[in-house]
Amino acid sequence: MKFRKAVLLGIGENALSKENWSRFDSLVEKRVSIAPNDPKLNAELTDADCLFNGFGVEVKKETIDAAPNLKYIGIFATAFNFVDIAHAKSKGITISNVAGYSSEAVAEFLFGALLEYMRDLEGSKKLGRAGVNEYNGALGRELKGKVFGVIGLGNIGGRVAEIAQGFGADVRYWSRNRKPEMESRGIKYENTDELISHSDILTLHFSHNKDTINFMNRERIGKMKNGAILMKFISMETFDTDALADRLSKGEITFIFENDEETPKSTFEKFAKLKNCAIYPSNAYATFEAMARRQSIFIDNIDNFLKGKPSNKIN
Amino acid sequence: MKFRKAVLLGIGENALSKENWSRFDSLVEKRVSIAPNDPKLNAELTDADCLFNGFGVEVKKETIDAAPNLKYIGIFATAFNFVDIAHAKSKGITISNVAGYSSEAVAEFLFGALLEYMRDLEGSKKLGRAGVNEYNGALGRELKGKVFGVIGLGNIGGRVAEIAQGFGADVRYWSRNRKPEMESRGIKYENTDELISHSDILTLHFSHNKDTINFMNRERIGKMKNGAILMKFISMETFDTDALADRLSKGEITFIFENDEETPKSTFEKFAKLKNCAIYPSNAYATFEAMARRQSIFIDNIDNFLKGKPSNKIN
Repeated sequence: MKFRKAVLLGIGENALSKENWSRFDSLVEKRVSIAPNDPKLNAELTDADCLFNGFGVEVKKETIDAAPNLKYIGIFATAFNFVDIAHAKSKGITISNVAGYSSEAVAEFLFGALLEYMRDLEGSKKLGRAGVNEYNGALGRELKGKVFGVIGLGNIGGRVAEIAQGFGADVRYWSRNRKPEMESRGIKYENTDELISHSDILTLHFSHNKDTINFMNRERIGKMKNGAILMKFISMETFDTDALADRLSKGEITFIFENDEETPKSTFEKFAKLKNCAIYPSNAYATFEAMARRQSIFIDNIDNFLKGKPSNKIN
Repeated sequence: MKFRKAVLLGIGENALSKENWSRFDSLVEKRVSIAPNDPKLNAELTDADCLFNGFGVEVKKETIDAAPNLKYIGIFATAFNFVDIAHAKSKGITISNVAGYSSEAVAEFLFGALLEYMRDLEGSKKLGRAGVNEYNGALGRELKGKVFGVIGLGNIGGRVAEIAQGFGADVRYWSRNRKPEMESRGIKYENTDELISHSDILTLHFSHNKDTINFMNRERIGKMKNGAILMKFISMETFDTDALADRLSKGEITFIFENDEETPKSTFEKFAKLKNCAIYPSNAYATFEAMARRQSIFIDNIDNFLKGKPSNKIN
């Protein structure tokens, strides 16, 4: 079975490799790429049975209603809050995203950033490049044996926990649901507040929604150990940034994070001055391997839907 | 049982914590610290039954002969080529070092330096500090699935292999002796030249002696894959630096290394200019935890000898 006609919104020719476009074309008879604001969009949607959109490209109720034959929406991203999921569901349309394509990339970046800080690689590299060929007197810290707390043991958090175990850390977690398989491998469950207060290194991996905004409130930030390292590769809206700035400016904890658009500029400026902050752009997800995986998951989803076994279904 | 008198050479009051000095003093009735070139050394040695020396402090035949009651030499370092091991052995003296105290520190540093390079953390941090809060367009590389070759599966190499497995790398090794326990955990044995030619990441962990000088000769360096990353946390004398410079200047491989005194200055200057070289001082071994472990292994060795079960015996 094949789709008859695909409409692509915000997915350019460069989004897929030549090889992946051939796979796409083997699954879809015809494809039309169109700008989301093109007045001809609704006309193109009339006979479309599948729709694909890129990160942040809205698929509203009206768009869905303009496509009476629509059976499938494929999102070329992990996030899906820009698609009217409920309305699509009410019409019996399947929606798949490319969840998990960047889990490995984020988890590996996190350990790079953590060790970079614990061993002062930036400072060390400068000396190395200048020709220092002996020990320069700086002592680092080790991961082994440290209490490593993961809040949210999903795709990314799960990989972070496994890698931390490889380093010999004492890995503990809290997640909405218990993970018996991970527990059987020695990753210990603790309740949130205990976990926060026990962790030498604390990292959060859950999605950004109304329930998780301000999860790390002043009380929880206050529970972190002196000397602990907090890692943030999720939205800054999860954190009480004032409470965080208070502890950071006293030098009590360290903050390693991806900056994002939710970080107030005044907060960023406070953090940027502090030695105990290591700040990165939103690069953790971006590897060659993740980009390739995103494409193959995107196409596998189409293939699986057509075979009657939808994958990465979000509705 | 206790030692009666210790002579300490090149081990100052700061070498051990107060707590560790108390442990030391509970095992040795009297201790004398003396400079290795002090003319009173031989007189002090006459009634000494144990001798302790720091990194690089020579213990020659004459020193040993000046201490007729000597039963034990404790080296406050991993290296021991500055002690006349054979002569001590011929006199029935036990020698222990502090092997392994820095294995974890070196293994962790290696992964920090590797990920730093694979994700361009230095460049990324600069942008982060400047306020970039979106993806900056740079794509990194992942460790997962890469062929990760370890030559020398001792204390350090073994830990490197285990951590690489946590990252999901395809870990392979060559070592003088097969390691069935590691193989049972999925670390595959290959012969040296195969391993060198298959590895995406190659790291060497063995000691520096007449058999290992120039181990990575021109032929072996030539066998490395284009695009491979070579990591060096051992002596530069293990490498044909001209052959290495040839491949590096063509951009064929990447070299991440601790600079050392064996690196010819002209070679260093060649490497320092190249983008595909990341150069560090000899800092990998230096963590607070390793320094603490060095002290406790040093004292445990004394305790174990006195209990008739010498540990970290090197003769």
